[in-house]
Amino acid sequence: MSGPRLAVVGATGIVGRELVALLEKRRFPASSLSVFSSGRTRTGVRFRGRRLRAASADMRRLAECDLVFLASSETVARRLGPALARRGVWVIDDSSEFRLDPEVPLVIPEINAGALSPRRRLIAGPNCTMTGLAVAAWPLHRRSAVREIRIASYQAVSGAGRSALSEYFQQSERRGGFAADGRAPLPRRHPARTLPRPIAGNVFPQVGGFDAQGHTGEESKIASELRKIWGAPRLRVSATAVRVPVVRGHSLAAWLRFAGPFPAARARRLLAAAPGVKLRRTGDYPSPADCAGTWPVHVGRVRAGVDARELALWIVSDNLLKGAALNSVQIAERLLSLGWLNQT
Amino acid sequence: MSGPRLAVVGATGIVGRELVALLEKRRFPASSLSVFSSGRTRTGVRFRGRRLRAASADMRRLAECDLVFLASSETVARRLGPALARRGVWVIDDSSEFRLDPEVPLVIPEINAGALSPRRRLIAGPNCTMTGLAVAAWPLHRRSAVREIRIASYQAVSGAGRSALSEYFQQSERRGGFAADGRAPLPRRHPARTLPRPIAGNVFPQVGGFDAQGHTGEESKIASELRKIWGAPRLRVSATAVRVPVVRGHSLAAWLRFAGPFPAARARRLLAAAPGVKLRRTGDYPSPADCAGTWPVHVGRVRAGVDARELALWIVSDNLLKGAALNSVQIAERLLSLGWLNQT
Repeated sequence: MSGPRLAVVGATGIVGRELVALLEKRRFPASSLSVFSSGRTRTGVRFRGRRLRAASADMRRLAECDLVFLASSETVARRLGPALARRGVWVIDDSSEFRLDPEVPLVIPEINAGALSPRRRLIAGPNCTMTGLAVAAWPLHRRSAVREIRIASYQAVSGAGRSALSEYFQQSERRGGFAADGRAPLPRRHPARTLPRPIAGNVFPQVGGFDAQGHTGEESKIASELRKIWGAPRLRVSATAVRVPVVRGHSLAAWLRFAGPFPAARARRLLAAAPGVKLRRTGDYPSPADCAGTWPVHVGRVRAGVDARELALWIVSDNLLKGAALNSVQIAERLLSLGWLNQT
Repeated sequence: MSGPRLAVVGATGIVGRELVALLEKRRFPASSLSVFSSGRTRTGVRFRGRRLRAASADMRRLAECDLVFLASSETVARRLGPALARRGVWVIDDSSEFRLDPEVPLVIPEINAGALSPRRRLIAGPNCTMTGLAVAAWPLHRRSAVREIRIASYQAVSGAGRSALSEYFQQSERRGGFAADGRAPLPRRHPARTLPRPIAGNVFPQVGGFDAQGHTGEESKIASELRKIWGAPRLRVSATAVRVPVVRGHSLAAWLRFAGPFPAARARRLLAAAPGVKLRRTGDYPSPADCAGTWPVHVGRVRAGVDARELALWIVSDNLLKGAALNSVQIAERLLSLGWLNQT
């Protein structure tokens, strides 16, 4: 079979498995797929009816590919990304390692596919929380520049990786501290190891570590990555990133502030026509339970904020799909349609 | 024993039980306590070592009391509140029925105890979500008027009452749709009856019904009740009220916008000294799991918002205590200390 030779590093992780599944579902015309994992887990993944065994990441084998997806850690990205790109291999990295590097395009195809270039083979995919916001607010920002953004997030546990998810399941098995009469205080005694607090029956405003100004890593990523992707260096962003007991699907309560009035009805018209966006009808709204496993960014509850110059929106997207694996595959599809991927 | 004769209507409900327990814990000097419930449940409640059987609300018996707590529906409040107040009985109502009535004081003692008057015997307690915000932001608002507030809430299921809580527990027993590998989509098939969507493993932005502008009842209450309690009719408020799978404890991500710069360090100093507020040290923050069952409004993550004229805060309070039962008992304690309650 003709088509580019692909590899996925981190293929047995939460995002990597989604990536492999998407390559098959979206019929990406790969001539081969090699899968690698970072060591501990030696399980395989299914692709086109066959079971592929994950090997240790191997520079020699990776350098023979046309396109490598990195769905692994910052450390792995640092070790493999630039070296592969130098050898002419396309690399699409989902870690945060290179996102703010001025030499690396940070790409959401619906927004800035123009940042792709045959001379920049290392490409970064953005933070999963920021992605839903960037896609949903983009058609509005294009119409009238957004000046200020405030968002509060409701982030699924899968965004913190597999061990966080196991921790959540374990805490839930112990009944999450639900008192039968709803009166007793909650899961004080649950072990919290990967996550900084118990998550079953709880919510907490910490995703990543704190900086000197009191912002978490996630909150800083949301602000700086959004500015880069939109090409809006002076955009003012304030985020409160919160973990919630949801398996998958990040939700956002967002406020967008414009220089002048922006009627909700106009916003709804723009959103209804926007690529990658699924607008719910008035009175309906998305929730993680009905968005998990789907591809678009779902938007609902479009209405005025504190005054006519502000819009409030509710945004839900699958953090493992559009927030990670799907966006990477869409970047690859774009490279393919631009004719930049080796087709032989 | 001397002291006022008390009654609690709705004593077997979620808030009513907390109310009775608080009257005992805080040693409220009642000479008697009668408990009533709205019909379906005929269970009793414990008070000072005795089991009190709840009777049907009875106007004749209630009119013999000095103070009646209404921890029931708007309908019950409408039927009993004004009639009892006309007969000289103090009534503290936790429903939303009279909160915006200009003749009815809407009171949080830390903020506007001055609104109490011996001529206004019917008193309203505020919305449970608004209360944490009102108490936490009050010391800052007094220092420099807040112009705009944006909040996203993370509201516990107990705020929706006992049947919502049962629904949550039932959905959780069925494992909340947790797929063992974290991949499968979530609780699509869970019955949602009291709540508009499944809540186990999910979050959704609907608390109450929608108005023509697309705001929910809860969001409108937050805005209008805050303006009344603060005496700030021109305050601009935008809220997104969201239900989360937590048993008790409402959390808020709040942004407060001032006319001029408001340093986070100054805010922390004011909050550390504010009545009813428990400020967490920098790097720490409250979560429902560690605030459920406690009395103060907990505040953390005090930092700058989109610029120096804005503060971002994270606020958690027990929706059944400071958000409901505790605030009502504190109003009663204030009436007592003012000497307005019959002491014989």
